[in-house]
Amino acid sequence: MARKLWGGAFGQPTHPSVERFTSSIAFDRALARYDVQVSRAHARMLGDAGIIATADAARLVAGLERILEEIDAGSFVFDESLEDVHTAVELRLRVLVGEVAGRLHTGRSRNDQIATDLALYLREVAHAAREGIAGLRSALVERSRQHVDTVLPGYTHLQRAQPVRLAHHWLAYVEMLGRDAARFAGLRERIARCPLGAGALAGSTLPLDPAATAAALGFDGPVANSMDAVASRDAALEFLGAVAICMVNLSRLAEDLVLWSTSEFGYVEFFDTITTGSSLMPQKKNPDVLELVRAKAGRAIGNLVTLLAVVKGLPLTYNRDLQEDKEPVIDSAATLRDSLGVLTEAIAALQVNEERMRLAAEDPLLLATDLAEALVREGVPFREAHEAVGLAVAHCRRKKLDLRALSREDLRAFHPAFPSGARELLDLERSLEARSLAGGTARARVAEALERSAREIAAEREALARETAAAREART
Amino acid sequence: MARKLWGGAFGQPTHPSVERFTSSIAFDRALARYDVQVSRAHARMLGDAGIIATADAARLVAGLERILEEIDAGSFVFDESLEDVHTAVELRLRVLVGEVAGRLHTGRSRNDQIATDLALYLREVAHAAREGIAGLRSALVERSRQHVDTVLPGYTHLQRAQPVRLAHHWLAYVEMLGRDAARFAGLRERIARCPLGAGALAGSTLPLDPAATAAALGFDGPVANSMDAVASRDAALEFLGAVAICMVNLSRLAEDLVLWSTSEFGYVEFFDTITTGSSLMPQKKNPDVLELVRAKAGRAIGNLVTLLAVVKGLPLTYNRDLQEDKEPVIDSAATLRDSLGVLTEAIAALQVNEERMRLAAEDPLLLATDLAEALVREGVPFREAHEAVGLAVAHCRRKKLDLRALSREDLRAFHPAFPSGARELLDLERSLEARSLAGGTARARVAEALERSAREIAAEREALARETAAAREART
Amino acid sequence: MARKLWGGAFGQPTHPSVERFTSSIAFDRALARYDVQVSRAHARMLGDAGIIATADAARLVAGLERILEEIDAGSFVFDESLEDVHTAVELRLRVLVGEVAGRLHTGRSRNDQIATDLALYLREVAHAAREGIAGLRSALVERSRQHVDTVLPGYTHLQRAQPVRLAHHWLAYVEMLGRDAARFAGLRERIARCPLGAGALAGSTLPLDPAATAAALGFDGPVANSMDAVASRDAALEFLGAVAICMVNLSRLAEDLVLWSTSEFGYVEFFDTITTGSSLMPQKKNPDVLELVRAKAGRAIGNLVTLLAVVKGLPLTYNRDLQEDKEPVIDSAATLRDSLGVLTEAIAALQVNEERMRLAAEDPLLLATDLAEALVREGVPFREAHEAVGLAVAHCRRKKLDLRALSREDLRAFHPAFPSGARELLDLERSLEARSLAGGTARARVAEALERSAREIAAEREALARETAAAREART
Amino acid sequence: MARKLWGGAFGQPTHPSVERFTSSIAFDRALARYDVQVSRAHARMLGDAGIIATADAARLVAGLERILEEIDAGSFVFDESLEDVHTAVELRLRVLVGEVAGRLHTGRSRNDQIATDLALYLREVAHAAREGIAGLRSALVERSRQHVDTVLPGYTHLQRAQPVRLAHHWLAYVEMLGRDAARFAGLRERIARCPLGAGALAGSTLPLDPAATAAALGFDGPVANSMDAVASRDAALEFLGAVAICMVNLSRLAEDLVLWSTSEFGYVEFFDTITTGSSLMPQKKNPDVLELVRAKAGRAIGNLVTLLAVVKGLPLTYNRDLQEDKEPVIDSAATLRDSLGVLTEAIAALQVNEERMRLAAEDPLLLATDLAEALVREGVPFREAHEAVGLAVAHCRRKKLDLRALSREDLRAFHPAFPSGARELLDLERSLEARSLAGGTARARVAEALERSAREIAAEREALARETAAAREART
Repeated sequence: MARKLWGGAFGQPTHPSVERFTSSIAFDRALARYDVQVSRAHARMLGDAGIIATADAARLVAGLERILEEIDAGSFVFDESLEDVHTAVELRLRVLVGEVAGRLHTGRSRNDQIATDLALYLREVAHAAREGIAGLRSALVERSRQHVDTVLPGYTHLQRAQPVRLAHHWLAYVEMLGRDAARFAGLRERIARCPLGAGALAGSTLPLDPAATAAALGFDGPVANSMDAVASRDAALEFLGAVAICMVNLSRLAEDLVLWSTSEFGYVEFFDTITTGSSLMPQKKNPDVLELVRAKAGRAIGNLVTLLAVVKGLPLTYNRDLQEDKEPVIDSAATLRDSLGVLTEAIAALQVNEERMRLAAEDPLLLATDLAEALVREGVPFREAHEAVGLAVAHCRRKKLDLRALSREDLRAFHPAFPSGARELLDLERSLEARSLAGGTARARVAEALERSAREIAAEREALARETAAAREART
Repeated sequence: MARKLWGGAFGQPTHPSVERFTSSIAFDRALARYDVQVSRAHARMLGDAGIIATADAARLVAGLERILEEIDAGSFVFDESLEDVHTAVELRLRVLVGEVAGRLHTGRSRNDQIATDLALYLREVAHAAREGIAGLRSALVERSRQHVDTVLPGYTHLQRAQPVRLAHHWLAYVEMLGRDAARFAGLRERIARCPLGAGALAGSTLPLDPAATAAALGFDGPVANSMDAVASRDAALEFLGAVAICMVNLSRLAEDLVLWSTSEFGYVEFFDTITTGSSLMPQKKNPDVLELVRAKAGRAIGNLVTLLAVVKGLPLTYNRDLQEDKEPVIDSAATLRDSLGVLTEAIAALQVNEERMRLAAEDPLLLATDLAEALVREGVPFREAHEAVGLAVAHCRRKKLDLRALSREDLRAFHPAFPSGARELLDLERSLEARSLAGGTARARVAEALERSAREIAAEREALARETAAAREART
Repeated sequence: MARKLWGGAFGQPTHPSVERFTSSIAFDRALARYDVQVSRAHARMLGDAGIIATADAARLVAGLERILEEIDAGSFVFDESLEDVHTAVELRLRVLVGEVAGRLHTGRSRNDQIATDLALYLREVAHAAREGIAGLRSALVERSRQHVDTVLPGYTHLQRAQPVRLAHHWLAYVEMLGRDAARFAGLRERIARCPLGAGALAGSTLPLDPAATAAALGFDGPVANSMDAVASRDAALEFLGAVAICMVNLSRLAEDLVLWSTSEFGYVEFFDTITTGSSLMPQKKNPDVLELVRAKAGRAIGNLVTLLAVVKGLPLTYNRDLQEDKEPVIDSAATLRDSLGVLTEAIAALQVNEERMRLAAEDPLLLATDLAEALVREGVPFREAHEAVGLAVAHCRRKKLDLRALSREDLRAFHPAFPSGARELLDLERSLEARSLAGGTARARVAEALERSAREIAAEREALARETAAAREART
Repeated sequence: MARKLWGGAFGQPTHPSVERFTSSIAFDRALARYDVQVSRAHARMLGDAGIIATADAARLVAGLERILEEIDAGSFVFDESLEDVHTAVELRLRVLVGEVAGRLHTGRSRNDQIATDLALYLREVAHAAREGIAGLRSALVERSRQHVDTVLPGYTHLQRAQPVRLAHHWLAYVEMLGRDAARFAGLRERIARCPLGAGALAGSTLPLDPAATAAALGFDGPVANSMDAVASRDAALEFLGAVAICMVNLSRLAEDLVLWSTSEFGYVEFFDTITTGSSLMPQKKNPDVLELVRAKAGRAIGNLVTLLAVVKGLPLTYNRDLQEDKEPVIDSAATLRDSLGVLTEAIAALQVNEERMRLAAEDPLLLATDLAEALVREGVPFREAHEAVGLAVAHCRRKKLDLRALSREDLRAFHPAFPSGARELLDLERSLEARSLAGGTARARVAEALERSAREIAAEREALARETAAAREART
């Protein structure tokens, strides 16, 4: 029977399969560092508030700092037979500082403790998500700078629609990812307050100082309601939701690149460093990394569903069901971190085949809208113009003609207002430059967008650095 | 064959089953009001920018306002044989103003149009969610005021844990719901910019004024990238996520009340107005409303999964898959609105059985922690105190004794440091008042929390009223 | 206040918003036909068992048959202010046959009634799913017959891997869909028993004859446990699971075709009947139908999640949460039916570009595995052969050479055992024919597979016809 | 750079983060035993078919059997730097038998190999699921035998509805679990055929004998289409679906027991062996095991969603996304196994408080339906009887009267047909016995159900034993 943090009222030992089933140490060890920081802040507070002797507090803090070093060094032993990481830490502390370890758990419960650990963990991984996103956005901006004049078809329904600059295409992701980062930043407001002091659910009868522990751990203050503090997991759900959305965005970028690296599109090629081979077919170079990013969006969705389904319908306050929050959170955090990492690598390790792109973009049908808009400029209602150009397109398809081959006379068979022949009206460069509205694909617009994005990313990185510095200060 | 907004290049009519399969008018009619507002803003801009004649613009605007009135009056006919709401509006406009209707779609695509409709819709339902949440929080605060001195057991693992005030229990939900409201408020930042002007995906060659339409519709400005504008649905996902999290929170309140209204708990009874009967068993009064709220959290989770799975792995830009965004969004918005509404009714329509609650709260075992903390105050390490009290509890269970019956001598058999008999140490009122930390269940803390919550809700309502006024101004 | 099937014990009317919130008539009307059949069987049994007078039973049956006709004719009015379809039917019956209608609900509850309705509905839609699947499989087999000699690259990782026959590619879906049909057939065993007679949860004190109603409705017998009968929804979950899996399979076929209809692949073109256009871009022909099938797989996943999350954690027996089973089930049934329907249309309405396919298949790199296997035939270990051919491929890529251009000498630079030059070893036809293992892409194997599949589909259709005949007989 | 099974065509080493990201050895090691069995069957076939020398085949087989022993003994080293379990096995084989190891991968790809491994794994865990289910059903039947005469309220809407025998209540789960077992048995038909021989996607040009390997591994024969063989994961999805449904059923049993072990219900108490304590509150004994089973249903739902979302929209054939099938499958298999195990323990380790149950069941309102059915027996239409009893119940509630206290005269105020006073009509024992329909709660029905269930479980266990014996034979 494993040693536990409870048991006085129990006459029989726990059944071994129950011990295994209820143990969480296999995964909550990811929170070990935070757990020890929380304990250290708690121990200091107990001493400062006179609840335990100052000397005892000092011994506890010293022991905990030793444990922190062991964790950092990878030498701390997570005994899988123990119930959880809290038990592992307290038992190790007993070895290091003796019976005084029994004073650490004064005025707290694992319920408020784990809620605090989780809040700190969520802050850390939300911060890391923003850093990873900044890295990928930065890589996209860098590559985009090289491809302002690389033109490819923009697609709707995966059908060629209108020509765009490659930089414009990638900047769409820079925008999406900016919103993803904002979601992680917004989450922070929902984990601004420290659960410590809530005890099991109702606070404590001891003269604790929750404001002090909150400050020591970098929170704005203690949680406003003790039952909420131990029962709620909505911040974890929000994190899982933000990861799922971001991973879905990444899966789209991955899908673009999977398509572009086919023989059929042939728009990009990846360095060998980023692809893998086949155990059977010697010629294969597969974009596995991108496929896995795409797949892992599914995993992030599954993790979100897990916790939503777990929390649904639970009465107040803490129920053991909530222990199942950790694996999805930890897994989604790692999934996002790694996916952002390899995508950033992949963006850097791809070669653009500018000619294939341009060739595809030169399909004159992509400019059919321009033809209709030429009619609009002659005063024709758009619906009528659309209909006329549609008929001209059908004619060309039937006759296997290039749309540009239609003379003014040919065009006038479809609508009398055509001002000139198709060749004069359909020009790739002119078409791109004509799309000069804000957010459009004209060169100047794209250049502006590049600069704005670069500034935005730089500002985000400064904010992240400030946050890191503040957190470091708070936690020492 | 239904009339369509395209077709020039098509030689054969669409297959009827394909028309039915691709039609969205059965559900996108929920966006009709927004669609017409968007068209009105667009028509005005076309006139102001000189792209169409001012008189034409005026006729379009007049026709659209007539349609808006018809929609408001419920007299607008949504012909289910049409492809979508945009087609329905444009065809009606043609009836009302004639051929000039064909000028409305100048310089825009259904891609940017529907993205704008959706953004307006999301703003509206996010706003409505905050209003509904404010209503429920307010009801909880009102009922809590009446129950500051109603004491019941707080539960962990659905086992009685420590006594709390009923007001304190309900205020936990007021906190959760506050974070829910903040999530909906945060979403607004991700729908601050107007997609109109993005066209199909690449903007337009016409001299549109997207800044003008954005301003007219109450946005901060146009979207920064045209491809992002038509391809992205992360704001819809964020909305669905916020609804799912909020519904999960509501399901917990519902579960509390389902439990409390059982014969076994007997803590609350609902007015007949809020319960339903059985077609077979004449005595039944069932809390169906609460069960349905609990169930509808499952539905909100399903809606979120639907759209996440739909968007995952789509390449840029618009793909028809995105049409499947509307039903989950509309259904989740309605589900949340109705669930908040009936829960607010239910909170008002319940009768608290204060005696049953207090009787349950007086279980002396609920104060076992206080006994341990009494030892801590004598300088005993908490672990040791916990163990001693655990043994005393086991002793009482075995002997079927009331914990309070243990004299100082009895207690000292378990630990020599007990300062007095259990009866002196275990008192419900004292125990409640001793939990006087911030966020605790002492009367003063609960009273403060009530006031703070009431102020918070009032401020939120003012903010919502300001937003409503601003939106009304922008859209006329 | 709406009329209800209960209310004696209620002193106050139900709140209107509660009535709306708890009403299910907007969607359970899809079960109306089954509900009336169940009532008819029940009424007959009540008469036969002497629980009500034979004449009363006859009047009830006559009234119910009249209602059945009204439903078939579309003239039955589903008053949305009523609680549910059962109420609508019973109230209409009262109009048609007078007070005797009050005898219909003898010895049953809406709990066992709705469980029976649902079981009948699930049988029907599972049957329909099998019919729809047989239709799509049949279309695939028909088109495959035309394309035994159409060769295209088989893909792994969306990279060209090895050449296959188009028939072979499509027959993979015929296999998948066969397993899908088997899942729907297997479900029938889990809905073999009739819930009627279970009452609210514990049966009835009246001398009902559940075996008679079970037989009349085509079940094998009554359910073995009354509490299970009213509380369980696992058959509905299994149905939703089978739909989700089948829709995921369909989404893959849709994805294949979306890719193949791009300009880049150019493998297929759809008739105009099956595509839609753009409101802005006159040249567009979009494969919307396929995109929507792909998307609707997401919807089927969401429906499954909804009901799993709803049922999770519900105590026995019936809880109102279970009312939320109907919308996902009805929606998934319709989604599958329509998706199978339009895909069957699409398969018939596509034109294969055999030249584009063959051109792509002739890429010599697709035969690199054959080269390695040639070495294996010379006694070289496969690993060594794989490595050697890999180096040869890299050499060709670097030098931009056609693999077939390598002479025996060239090849021997990579491995001395090459028996001849590449051109002798690499031949598309030979390669295809060499893949003559069971399940392979050789012509004879594909021809056999076509015949086996055709026989399998014919047998399935006969089984379905027998089932239909049996059901028709049972229910009249 | 790690050693790989490919690489000839690659000029640069894989990026380390890409290696980590694409590696699956951390989880596919769970398939190691199956992988080696598959390789052994393949090696034997290569020798028997004359593709490699008999002596080489013998050496491969000997080496693989040595590896199998190492895996069984736990001494096989899974080097986390390797790509996957196949690589680990082949590299170890090279150490054990030298260069001949390079002949093992002849005529196969990791695509068909992993599909075969997975099929074997699914058979094994589906078998184990049936065994675990049989264990839990057996425990429920055993405990039910002891509680045929233990009466408790049956609940609908968690409101007391009608009295039932505890055995009847538990037998409802025995029925549900029987269907769960049938789902796992049905799955076997979808994994009856062996993917080996499908190669990468198109079979092989070598004269392999897939029928031999299929037979050696216990399959009915080889898969009918090579592309289906490597591309499909519907059997894995079906397994995940069956687990999710079964876990949802288990979550309901867990919820029953969580409720029953509250102070408020007080129906059951768990031995200490099955409960856990609180680190803060010395008196707590929490039913953590049941809460975790309930929660893990959420996890099983999440795993199902993960794989559905992963597979959705993938084109044929193998895509690396499919690697993400293993973690959800392995996790769901373990989750189900452990949940069944601890629930079986918990059922054995609970003490029923028969008195508390009977006390609750004696609530006279639970017999109100009997009162209405008494009127029906007097010829009163049920609706009228229901209304009359409803009014009587409301009267008793208002006056705080026991329903049984109503005399014949009292009752006649509500309906003239009441044949006698309530006390004569309302008797718990009589009421139970009167529910004597098939599937009802009368003693004789319950006794029959117990025997039928016991026979069913015994037959299932025999079938499982036969299957185990057959599998053992096939695989040696």
